[in-house]
Amino acid sequence: MNSIKVIKIGGKIAENEAWLTEFLSEFHQMKGSKILVHGGGVLASSISKQLGITTTMIEGRRVTDSKTLDVVTMVYGGLINKKIVARLQALGQNAIGLTGADLNIIEADKRNPIPVDFGWVGDINTVQVDWLKTFLEQGIVPVIAPLTHDKKGNMLNTNADNIAGFLTQELAIRYEVELIFCFDKPGVLQEGLVLPKLDRKKYIALKEERVIVDGMIPKLDLGYHALENGAKSVKLTHFSALNDQEKGTVLEA
Amino acid sequence: MNSIKVIKIGGKIAENEAWLTEFLSEFHQMKGSKILVHGGGVLASSISKQLGITTTMIEGRRVTDSKTLDVVTMVYGGLINKKIVARLQALGQNAIGLTGADLNIIEADKRNPIPVDFGWVGDINTVQVDWLKTFLEQGIVPVIAPLTHDKKGNMLNTNADNIAGFLTQELAIRYEVELIFCFDKPGVLQEGLVLPKLDRKKYIALKEERVIVDGMIPKLDLGYHALENGAKSVKLTHFSALNDQEKGTVLEA
Repeated sequence: MNSIKVIKIGGKIAENEAWLTEFLSEFHQMKGSKILVHGGGVLASSISKQLGITTTMIEGRRVTDSKTLDVVTMVYGGLINKKIVARLQALGQNAIGLTGADLNIIEADKRNPIPVDFGWVGDINTVQVDWLKTFLEQGIVPVIAPLTHDKKGNMLNTNADNIAGFLTQELAIRYEVELIFCFDKPGVLQEGLVLPKLDRKKYIALKEERVIVDGMIPKLDLGYHALENGAKSVKLTHFSALNDQEKGTVLEA
Repeated sequence: MNSIKVIKIGGKIAENEAWLTEFLSEFHQMKGSKILVHGGGVLASSISKQLGITTTMIEGRRVTDSKTLDVVTMVYGGLINKKIVARLQALGQNAIGLTGADLNIIEADKRNPIPVDFGWVGDINTVQVDWLKTFLEQGIVPVIAPLTHDKKGNMLNTNADNIAGFLTQELAIRYEVELIFCFDKPGVLQEGLVLPKLDRKKYIALKEERVIVDGMIPKLDLGYHALENGAKSVKLTHFSALNDQEKGTVLEA
């Protein structure tokens, strides 16, 4: 094993039966060692609503009170994670669903409540990849939910993009790592067209022009950060185009 | 590693903060290799109710329609399983939360809908313990949720006592295995007193006299079955008395 692909899918894909099926088929066809990191925010909000729990978002990030922590632990660590594992098993791909608490893979610190109290949200502190390497060497796909723990007995809600970025950096110490963000868009868009390449200078310009906005910004920041910290490549692409080298947006340092 | 303890706790314990803390402290003090299997039915019923899903039980077993399957996958595989893992990590005990789908540990068949259609309920078909052995050899505690999968992409709801029993039998091929059922009673009771020992003949008599009833019957049937299939010992005891050799009821062939 020389190279590893870290694939991140957003909640929208994980929660949509047809999209998930299409994505997993692409993912399954992809050669080599691979890790799947998934989100699940839309479903968490919908289940929260059904349970009468108000969802509060600040700057696109979920405020996680103790009831919301229970919901995300259920939805991310249980429902979505195990559904993906069961589907991969049905495709003949052995897989294991993990949170950061399992095997102590990702330890995090509860975010400082000042200036904004996000509640039970974790900022990643330590990533241990030894067990991930063991699974990958045996041909097993780790499927990672956006949850960590504080080593004090609490689960913590942690952004899936961040998890994918941190895993990439840690694995890049020893392997060639490709980080791929999959979503329901064909890549980074400018006037409706996909940018096949995007270097940091152009990214900053497009951000200033407000061509690149909202959730794309932290994702790209993470991408460039991973590139500067050893990732071999970082790409953003449509979930159905995972194996199409011609599609998507490749980041350049 | 020569011997393994398989400990099963019911949902009532896993769902009660104070009891869970007390149990995990006992569990942590227990020497040697150990596997924890947990239930979670009470919480699943309560969350189902909050979500407006009707819980139907037949002969003490949950009828699992597709919405209920989502609930048990969330509650067993996510909320309860990860809470236990995070708590063990806080005690300095490395642990991994698993369902039968993870690493393909437990494959099951969806139960025949005739005579009673229980829905997405799985009867265990194949148990693979190689990865469990690997974890145990590294001092890691596997924490197993009462969920399996059908290898066709579906999770299945599976009784935790059955999982503990099947794991015991499979592990007993190579190891000395002690199976311990922990609950909120001090053991098998007769006129309010704990029976320190219970052989099969006496069990059958007490069942006929209706001294032993309800949920205790399948548990004891499983226990005797495990004893006959290689388990070194089978005990039923209070969750706070896990390390007290003088307490609980020991089954005898």
